[in-house]
Amino acid sequence: MAKGKKLVEAITSMNDDFAQWYTDIVKKAELVDYSSVKGCMIIRPYGYAIWENIQRDLDRRFKETGHENVYMPMFIPESLLQKEKEHVEGFAPEVAWVTRFGEEELTEKLCVRPTSETLFCEHYSKIVQSYNDLPKLYNQWCSVVRCEKTTRPFLRTTEFLWQEGHTVHATAEEAEEETIRMLNIYAKHCEEVLAIPVIKGQKTEKEKFAGAKATYTIESLMHDGKALQTGTSHNFGDNFAKAFNIQYTDKSGKLQYVHETSWGMTTRLIGAVIMVHGDDNGLIIPPKVAPIQVILVPIAQHKEGVLEKAEELKNTISKIARVKLDVRDKMPGWKFAEYEMKGVPLRIEIGPKDIENNQCVFVRRDNMEKITVGLNEVENKIKEVLDEIQNDMLKRARENRDNNTFVAKSMDEFDMVLKEKAGFVKAMWCGEKSCEDKIKEEIGATSRCIPFEQEQISDTCVCCGKKAKHMVYWGKAY
Amino acid sequence: MAKGKKLVEAITSMNDDFAQWYTDIVKKAELVDYSSVKGCMIIRPYGYAIWENIQRDLDRRFKETGHENVYMPMFIPESLLQKEKEHVEGFAPEVAWVTRFGEEELTEKLCVRPTSETLFCEHYSKIVQSYNDLPKLYNQWCSVVRCEKTTRPFLRTTEFLWQEGHTVHATAEEAEEETIRMLNIYAKHCEEVLAIPVIKGQKTEKEKFAGAKATYTIESLMHDGKALQTGTSHNFGDNFAKAFNIQYTDKSGKLQYVHETSWGMTTRLIGAVIMVHGDDNGLIIPPKVAPIQVILVPIAQHKEGVLEKAEELKNTISKIARVKLDVRDKMPGWKFAEYEMKGVPLRIEIGPKDIENNQCVFVRRDNMEKITVGLNEVENKIKEVLDEIQNDMLKRARENRDNNTFVAKSMDEFDMVLKEKAGFVKAMWCGEKSCEDKIKEEIGATSRCIPFEQEQISDTCVCCGKKAKHMVYWGKAY
Repeated sequence: MAKGKKLVEAITSMNDDFAQWYTDIVKKAELVDYSSVKGCMIIRPYGYAIWENIQRDLDRRFKETGHENVYMPMFIPESLLQKEKEHVEGFAPEVAWVTRFGEEELTEKLCVRPTSETLFCEHYSKIVQSYNDLPKLYNQWCSVVRCEKTTRPFLRTTEFLWQEGHTVHATAEEAEEETIRMLNIYAKHCEEVLAIPVIKGQKTEKEKFAGAKATYTIESLMHDGKALQTGTSHNFGDNFAKAFNIQYTDKSGKLQYVHETSWGMTTRLIGAVIMVHGDDNGLIIPPKVAPIQVILVPIAQHKEGVLEKAEELKNTISKIARVKLDVRDKMPGWKFAEYEMKGVPLRIEIGPKDIENNQCVFVRRDNMEKITVGLNEVENKIKEVLDEIQNDMLKRARENRDNNTFVAKSMDEFDMVLKEKAGFVKAMWCGEKSCEDKIKEEIGATSRCIPFEQEQISDTCVCCGKKAKHMVYWGKAY
Repeated sequence: MAKGKKLVEAITSMNDDFAQWYTDIVKKAELVDYSSVKGCMIIRPYGYAIWENIQRDLDRRFKETGHENVYMPMFIPESLLQKEKEHVEGFAPEVAWVTRFGEEELTEKLCVRPTSETLFCEHYSKIVQSYNDLPKLYNQWCSVVRCEKTTRPFLRTTEFLWQEGHTVHATAEEAEEETIRMLNIYAKHCEEVLAIPVIKGQKTEKEKFAGAKATYTIESLMHDGKALQTGTSHNFGDNFAKAFNIQYTDKSGKLQYVHETSWGMTTRLIGAVIMVHGDDNGLIIPPKVAPIQVILVPIAQHKEGVLEKAEELKNTISKIARVKLDVRDKMPGWKFAEYEMKGVPLRIEIGPKDIENNQCVFVRRDNMEKITVGLNEVENKIKEVLDEIQNDMLKRARENRDNNTFVAKSMDEFDMVLKEKAGFVKAMWCGEKSCEDKIKEEIGATSRCIPFEQEQISDTCVCCGKKAKHMVYWGKAY
């Protein structure tokens, strides 16, 4: 066990230094590597495989709701970016500018897309003519660039991978329905697949997307008590339609502006998985997105019959789960530690004694529980245990979130809660930006969202004491 | 049929103007749209769905042979690009340079990747230490940028989508094996999935990739007699390993350089599908990559029972094929022409008379053959007919290729063949660049490849008359 122990000791403890713990995990579990490119990361096979599993689930949900994938250019001419005023103001300071092709200086510089609203709008203005052409429900998988000074793998990098949905509709009602539909799909993906509970709600005016009429968000709580925005869905109303002249002829022959939405999820989700589920031994990946769901470790593998039995077991399991058999010439303890670090949800050990007893041993990564399973029951048991792990992970994350969600009725209470503890704070708000600014300044918390599920904590704003309009989730955020 | 006819008449005939025929198809079949971004195209849902089907098949083949997907940054610092001399000379003239982030001028400019050898090499130099770490078999799906003055959708655009495999191996033999393995996978994909026959061979020194020791290629013949390079696989030897210092300790403890390969296929494949299979009525998409494999068109759909029966049929078919039922209020003839244009491999018509006779009518897109099928046989028949279409398309393409492959034993013959006809020309070559240059200059043909399957056409070089080393495929190329 010595070598295995050494491997584990290399991770900083979560409670000692959460940021360092995070960095240790992403490096040592081989999710990413740093590159010589300013602010950009390399996503390694194990990290990318998680992203592929996330993509597969989201893409299925998008297609089931009638969305189609497209690909837009990665460049946006400066004049196109400038068409919607708020939008360009939001993004211009952080875009990468291409000014030369080879030796040739460009007459109009191009930015590398920070997001593709402007490109979709230009395209829609050309292909939408009549109500028959609506809705258009497009999505794009790509990478985008927003220059960042301080970066952290998955959470904040200059380039990141994402999907961006862009849809146009005949009516405001349909656009609003779509915006909420996609938020719900995001919430389901987080809870059902990533085992991450979310708070669904609306962003305040201050926090909404540049150019949007309304931004909806799902917010999750990390292990260190900080909030992470895991997905957003925007209703643009006809803002962009007017700027880009996207009009259609309705049934009565009248010209109308379309109503538009956009929504996105990014590789940041992998950061959320790490920070919601991980522990001091490393990652814990929910079975539904785990690149390896079951790791099979033979014990005393040099003894007669062990490898043959392990191979047989692997073939059985491979029909129902993503399984890997590790036959490297290393101590089982070393392997245990490695796959615990990598967060493989289920380990199966099989050695000479197990074979004698016609059994093997399951070890759950999430709670380290050991279960002895008869070899003829493995097939049924695997699915059951993986489901249990998936469900228990969500349950635990929800309990953790609830235990770290506090209520504040005054600024003092608000301040004290976030000094002594860390988590979400529910507090009433009058709706004024001045109070939001003051809370940010004095307490360091930002409004995460106005949740759809409102509670009447008190009648007055936690900050100014005037009549409250909404209950708001506040927190320190990534 | 009037409206349908009108739709068809809108395409230029292939024989009148092949380039215009191509442009008409990509626009009218809604594969792409032009954008306001210099040299870049928008891939629309119908075009992107073909790409997704190509990706799914290639990705499966890559994973079955042990490859893993990763993601590298889209930017390359100038100093990194310059590390391998031939490589930078090959690409520098056509790269897009990022010189500013927001308002900040960069101290070192970044190019948008034209290909990612340099990034993979830098990463490999960090993660490869011992023979235990080898081989590394990585692939990346992304877009790359190479500035082009004259562009054509799918065939030549400033930005295009592709996959790039990059692998490192302990020995030269393993690298060579991998290079050929991937070329064979590309060839199988083309022939089995895209129904495009290929010539496998090696590029001459003149035509090989910048920085490679050897480049292998698959070459296909388009309907206009021009050649298209549909995939390439490169063996870098230790060129890059030396430039980037990628070394490993072998079993005897000695430091060795790794041997490297790279291989890529692009959205250009969609251009190949159009130009190999299309006709004057539009696209013909091979069933295996067709976004819609079966289009169900009800006849006299207002009549009682027709839509119900069509819907029932759709549900049956959807279990075995990608099917769409078109119930729009348009004439059947209009729909026929539209889906012929879009190249849907199989149309099924069902009307009141068919229902009376408990049958429906299959119409194959590739040869317009009509087949009457009993409603209870549809399920079995669909798979059979789609397979037949797939096989017949490959057979027809192979016949066309063979009928347009000529032999030249002298420069006069070579010149005459390409003046009177258009296609591949097989001719002997001495191996000297001067002869290659002369053939290019005088006849306008380039060497496509030195095929693996050699034939002894004569003993002397078609150009200089000296002793011939190889039989070469020549052609005018895209």
